[in-house]
Amino acid sequence: MRIAKTIAEVRSFIAELRAERSDTASGSIVGFVPTMGYLHEGHASLLRRSRQESGISVLSIFVNPIQFGPNEDLDRYPRSEEADLKLAEREGVDVVFLPSVAEMYPEERRTTVTVTGVTERLCGASRPGHFDGVATVVSKLFNIVKPDQAFFGAKDAQQVAVLQKMVNDLNMDIEIIPCPIIREEDGLALSSRNVYLSEEQRREALVLSRSLRTASLRIESDAAVTPELIMAEVTTAIQESPLAEIDYVDLLTFPNLEPLDEQDGFTKLRASEGSIILALAVKFGSTRLIDNTIMKLKEVPLHV
Amino acid sequence: MRIAKTIAEVRSFIAELRAERSDTASGSIVGFVPTMGYLHEGHASLLRRSRQESGISVLSIFVNPIQFGPNEDLDRYPRSEEADLKLAEREGVDVVFLPSVAEMYPEERRTTVTVTGVTERLCGASRPGHFDGVATVVSKLFNIVKPDQAFFGAKDAQQVAVLQKMVNDLNMDIEIIPCPIIREEDGLALSSRNVYLSEEQRREALVLSRSLRTASLRIESDAAVTPELIMAEVTTAIQESPLAEIDYVDLLTFPNLEPLDEQDGFTKLRASEGSIILALAVKFGSTRLIDNTIMKLKEVPLHV
Repeated sequence: MRIAKTIAEVRSFIAELRAERSDTASGSIVGFVPTMGYLHEGHASLLRRSRQESGISVLSIFVNPIQFGPNEDLDRYPRSEEADLKLAEREGVDVVFLPSVAEMYPEERRTTVTVTGVTERLCGASRPGHFDGVATVVSKLFNIVKPDQAFFGAKDAQQVAVLQKMVNDLNMDIEIIPCPIIREEDGLALSSRNVYLSEEQRREALVLSRSLRTASLRIESDAAVTPELIMAEVTTAIQESPLAEIDYVDLLTFPNLEPLDEQDGFTKLRASEGSIILALAVKFGSTRLIDNTIMKLKEVPLHV
Repeated sequence: MRIAKTIAEVRSFIAELRAERSDTASGSIVGFVPTMGYLHEGHASLLRRSRQESGISVLSIFVNPIQFGPNEDLDRYPRSEEADLKLAEREGVDVVFLPSVAEMYPEERRTTVTVTGVTERLCGASRPGHFDGVATVVSKLFNIVKPDQAFFGAKDAQQVAVLQKMVNDLNMDIEIIPCPIIREEDGLALSSRNVYLSEEQRREALVLSRSLRTASLRIESDAAVTPELIMAEVTTAIQESPLAEIDYVDLLTFPNLEPLDEQDGFTKLRASEGSIILALAVKFGSTRLIDNTIMKLKEVPLHV
């Protein structure tokens, strides 16, 4: 495994590997997993997927300052380079790109990649500027690594929708591959930020995955249920946890992230087998967790 | 010469040529000249440069709607596909990319590349949104063609500054190569829009290059001259033409396009051999022409 600290290094490592491995069919396909480090089994699942599908597997670890708001947790975002490199080695990563902030932003940055529409709700609404920072840094990383495929976790579902739209709109020749959310055995979605939770917060945080699960079972089985009812039930369930403070609970079409027609509710989407996302962001103390479930809707027989 | 109407075609033509020509040193280097067509000798000079420096020479012709304002000349922008293809053939172009608007913008576009700072003055001030449209379409074209080098005319000096900043900020692995302004024998800078000028407007439009030339000679030879004086003289010279209506006359640092220090004038820039641009945009009837001169400043001996 090679470790690159500079853009020039990562480019030359990847070029060498492409040349060495160009004789096999998938040998010179570059798979890329961009992360902010503090890697957990969610990231490991992305790296395994990249290892399976690409001849060259590249991981980047960069806590990107421009995607954090002024009152967010940039300064205390958890880091653990040594453990990250061990995990990367274990998952067969070929090249780790570990740039400094000065390497990524050497001069006053004047260029921003902005995606509208899909950024208006959910985290886009509660974290202004966040997705500009994400789209801009991912554009940079894509231009540096030049991957054929890039793997992202579905926990950041809005991020996947934003990047897919960006790649389509700007004709980037890169396949965005969303991968399933990885959860603890008790249901908590893995997140680098889980490390901030107290034991009690950790216990109460289970309400997120539990309420999503209950809601999706209800949507799958109850033809009469409405989006409003689902949202009300999820909200009530979370509010029963005294430590939870809701940032948002929302139910939107996926991947366009548009509100459902109020009159129509699920009806047309069931008929057309459209997809929805039920997504939430909830604070426990100063730790903000997100979780979601994406479902393809189907007709429900009225009498089961 | 191959002509591609779709993104898939242009990618496959370039990939074939890269494979065929990979045995020579410069053979698989892709040079790119993006244009809006109605090609003249200014474009031809870019294509010749691309032919000299790159093994594969790609031209795009696309009148990009998103860089025109609502009251600008998109609908009447001149076109002449047949003549353009002849000129391209003559200049040894390998691949012409001639996409439709639907090919470039197949769905509702939500992604914009924005460059601030260098876009605040000159055409950026008088054509709001113009450089967002330019940066966005050039990003798309770069992602489609994947050139190693891209050639742009210095007549659009602010465009060159914007694209250079975009390429640096987003780590695009592409060299931006600015090429000198090409002029008619009488000094008029070549432009596709010159075709709109009446005989009388055409004659009066010579005031642009003439006043730039006078100003640059004065800056080169007169240690006491100030930016204010230069701007006043250029403005007065243009105002003497009854058909000319000034949009802007401005004198800025290059390539950062920042105003000069009012107190200091040219002094520090002369000492450090800094560069300036004297740029103007002037309307003759409904035709808006731009021209500029970029100079590296030098000390002037006080007594010559």
